[in-house]
Amino acid sequence: MDYQKRLARLQKKLDRKKLDAILISQPENRRYLSGYTGGDHGIAETSGVLLALRKGRTFLLTDFRFKLQAEKETSGVEVMLYPKGLLELLGRLLPDLGVRKLGFESHYTLHSTAVELKAQLSQKKIALSPQSGLIEAMRIIKDEDEIAAIKQSVRLNEKVFEEVYSSFADYKSEIEVAIAIETAMRRYGAERPSFATIVATGPNGALPHAVPGVDKIQKNKSLTIDMGLILDGYCSDMTRNFVPGKATKRYTKLHRLVRKAQLAGMAGIRAGIRSCEADKCARSVIAEAGYGKYFGHSLGHGVGLAVHEGPSLSGRSKKKLKAGMIVTVEPGIYIPGWGGIRLENMGVVREDGFENFNTNSTWLDI
Amino acid sequence: MDYQKRLARLQKKLDRKKLDAILISQPENRRYLSGYTGGDHGIAETSGVLLALRKGRTFLLTDFRFKLQAEKETSGVEVMLYPKGLLELLGRLLPDLGVRKLGFESHYTLHSTAVELKAQLSQKKIALSPQSGLIEAMRIIKDEDEIAAIKQSVRLNEKVFEEVYSSFADYKSEIEVAIAIETAMRRYGAERPSFATIVATGPNGALPHAVPGVDKIQKNKSLTIDMGLILDGYCSDMTRNFVPGKATKRYTKLHRLVRKAQLAGMAGIRAGIRSCEADKCARSVIAEAGYGKYFGHSLGHGVGLAVHEGPSLSGRSKKKLKAGMIVTVEPGIYIPGWGGIRLENMGVVREDGFENFNTNSTWLDI
Repeated sequence: MDYQKRLARLQKKLDRKKLDAILISQPENRRYLSGYTGGDHGIAETSGVLLALRKGRTFLLTDFRFKLQAEKETSGVEVMLYPKGLLELLGRLLPDLGVRKLGFESHYTLHSTAVELKAQLSQKKIALSPQSGLIEAMRIIKDEDEIAAIKQSVRLNEKVFEEVYSSFADYKSEIEVAIAIETAMRRYGAERPSFATIVATGPNGALPHAVPGVDKIQKNKSLTIDMGLILDGYCSDMTRNFVPGKATKRYTKLHRLVRKAQLAGMAGIRAGIRSCEADKCARSVIAEAGYGKYFGHSLGHGVGLAVHEGPSLSGRSKKKLKAGMIVTVEPGIYIPGWGGIRLENMGVVREDGFENFNTNSTWLDI
Repeated sequence: MDYQKRLARLQKKLDRKKLDAILISQPENRRYLSGYTGGDHGIAETSGVLLALRKGRTFLLTDFRFKLQAEKETSGVEVMLYPKGLLELLGRLLPDLGVRKLGFESHYTLHSTAVELKAQLSQKKIALSPQSGLIEAMRIIKDEDEIAAIKQSVRLNEKVFEEVYSSFADYKSEIEVAIAIETAMRRYGAERPSFATIVATGPNGALPHAVPGVDKIQKNKSLTIDMGLILDGYCSDMTRNFVPGKATKRYTKLHRLVRKAQLAGMAGIRAGIRSCEADKCARSVIAEAGYGKYFGHSLGHGVGLAVHEGPSLSGRSKKKLKAGMIVTVEPGIYIPGWGGIRLENMGVVREDGFENFNTNSTWLDI
C-alpha cells in the first residue's frame, strides 16, 4: 500500500481546511495512513496516535510498549514516545512544530479527552478543531490494490467455511463450531476474526447478533453461521444459513425468499443509486411476501480495514453509491421462537453493477 | 450478583449530584449494573445504553438486534428500542420522564456524540452534565461474590496454561501456542480471552505487547506467555516466562531478578499504602541491580469485569490502595535484540497484605 500517497492526499485536505496538523486516533485510520498495526484495547487504551502535519512531517506518538513494533512497521514516520502521557508531549511538541490550529477526530476522541486537550492547548494558544470522517472519506473508495486484498480475505473466509462445513457432523455445539472456525482462520494466516463468529442453532438464530453458546446443534432446524476474518488488514464478512438434517417446508420457503431478496439487492446495486434504493430492492421482496416486520436491520454495510464502515445500505441513507465502494448484501428474516435466516455476500460497487466476491454456494439456491 | 443493590447505590449517587438520570454507555459499567452482556463492536457501535433514573426506573435502550438478549439477561430493567436512533428516542423519552438534568459518561462518550446530544437536549431544555468514573468508583472495590468469581477465572486460566504447557513440545510456532490456549479457554467455558494472548519467543519478548506470529518457537531462548480469560464476566490475567530447552546463565539471572521484584511487590502491597509505593517495592529491586531502564511499564493494574481497570500500580499514582481491590503484580525486563522476562500474578488487596490468587508455579522459582 502506498502510504506516502495517502499522507499527501491528507496534507492537501489539511491545506483546504487551514489546519496545521491533525491527530489521528481511530485505529483503522492510523493503519490506513501509516501501516502501523498496533491494536487498541478499547478506546481508552490506545497503542498510539498519528500526528500528521500539513507541511509534511508525520509522527507516530506511542508508549514504550509499542516502540519496536511502530519502528518496524512504519517508514517515513517519526516514532516518538510519551512517557508522561500524550497531553504532556503535545504541549511540548506542537509549539516547537509551529502548530497553531490542530484538528482531532471528534468521532473517535472521548469527550473527556477533548476537554483535557482543549485545556492543555489553550495554554499554548493552540486552537482545536473537531473533524469527522476526513480519513473515512478517503477509505470508503478502495483502489484496486485494496480490492485485491479484500478478495483474498473473502476467499480465505470461504475456504475456512467450506472446511468446517465439510466436517460439520463432528461438532456438537455452537461453540465447538465457532472454535473450529476461528482456529482454522488463524491456522491459515488470518490476523484474527473480523468480529466474534456467530453460530446460532434453531431459535437462537432469531437474534441477529447471537453469541455462540454450549447449546447443542439442533437437527432439522435452521442454523446460521456469520463469520469473517482479517487478512493483511482487510476484512471479510459472510453469512450462510442451512439445516443440519432435513429442511422443513417453512424453512425452505423462507430461505428461498431471503435468497430472492439477496439476488434482487445484488442486481440493484451500481454506482449512482442511493443507499436507500439499494436497500429497497431487497426489502420490497421480503415486504411483499408479508415478512417485512421480520427484517429489522439494514441491507448491508461497507467493509475494508474495518468490518463495519461506510457506506451503510440503509433505508435512511440517501447518499449515492460510488464505484470502488465495498458493501455486504445481507437480508434476513428473524422469527422469535422459531429462528432466523440470513444470507450475506460482499463485493464491490462498479459503474455498471455489483461485482460479487463470493464464490461459495453452499445451500444458497435450495 | 445483586444488581438491584448496585442500582440503589447509583441512585444515591445521583441524588447527591442532583442528577435526575444518567446514561451509562461503558460496556462493563452497563453489565455491572444490569447483567446485560451485550458486546460493543468498538465504541462507535454500541449494543445499548443504560438509562438509570434517580427515582428508580432503569431502562436499557438498544436496537432490534439485541432485544431478545436484553430481555433474557436483565430483570427489573425496562428494555426499549430505538429504531430511529438513540438521540431521537431520548428526545421523546426524557421529557416524559421529567428528566431536567442528565449525566453522561464523559470518559466513554465520543466528543461528536456529546455535541449531538447537547444540541438535541437543549431543544427540550434538558441540561447535560459530564460525569467520569462514577460506576468505576463502585467497581474498583470488589465484594466477596466478585472475589470468588475472579478466583474461578484465575483458576481456569491456570488450568488452561498447565494443559498447554504439558504438551508444549507439540507446538512449533507462537501462533500455534496461542490458538491452543484460546481454544482450550473456550472449550472449558470461558466467554473469550480477556485480551489477545501473547506468545513471544526469543527477541520478540522484548515487545511487552508482542503479537503472536508464525515465528518458530526458539530452543533455549526466553519464551513469554501472557494470557487471560473471561469467565462469567470476570477477567483473569497471568504471565509466565520459561525456556523451551536449557536456560542460559543470563536468562536465569534475569528471571531470578524479576521474580525477586515480584515477591517484593506482593510483600509490599496492603490496604493503605500508595500505588507508587507498591510500584517502588518491586521497581527498586530491578533498579538496584542496574536494569531499571529495561522495566518501562507500571507494576500492575486492576482487574475485574475489565482486564484493565483501576487501580493502576504506577509510579505516578499517589492514590492509596484499599481492601477489596484486585491487582496484578507484573514486573518485567525487556532487552531489545535479546528478549524479555515478565512474571505476573494477581490477587486481592487485604487490610494486612496481598492475597495472591495464583497457585501455578511453573518455572517461577528456578
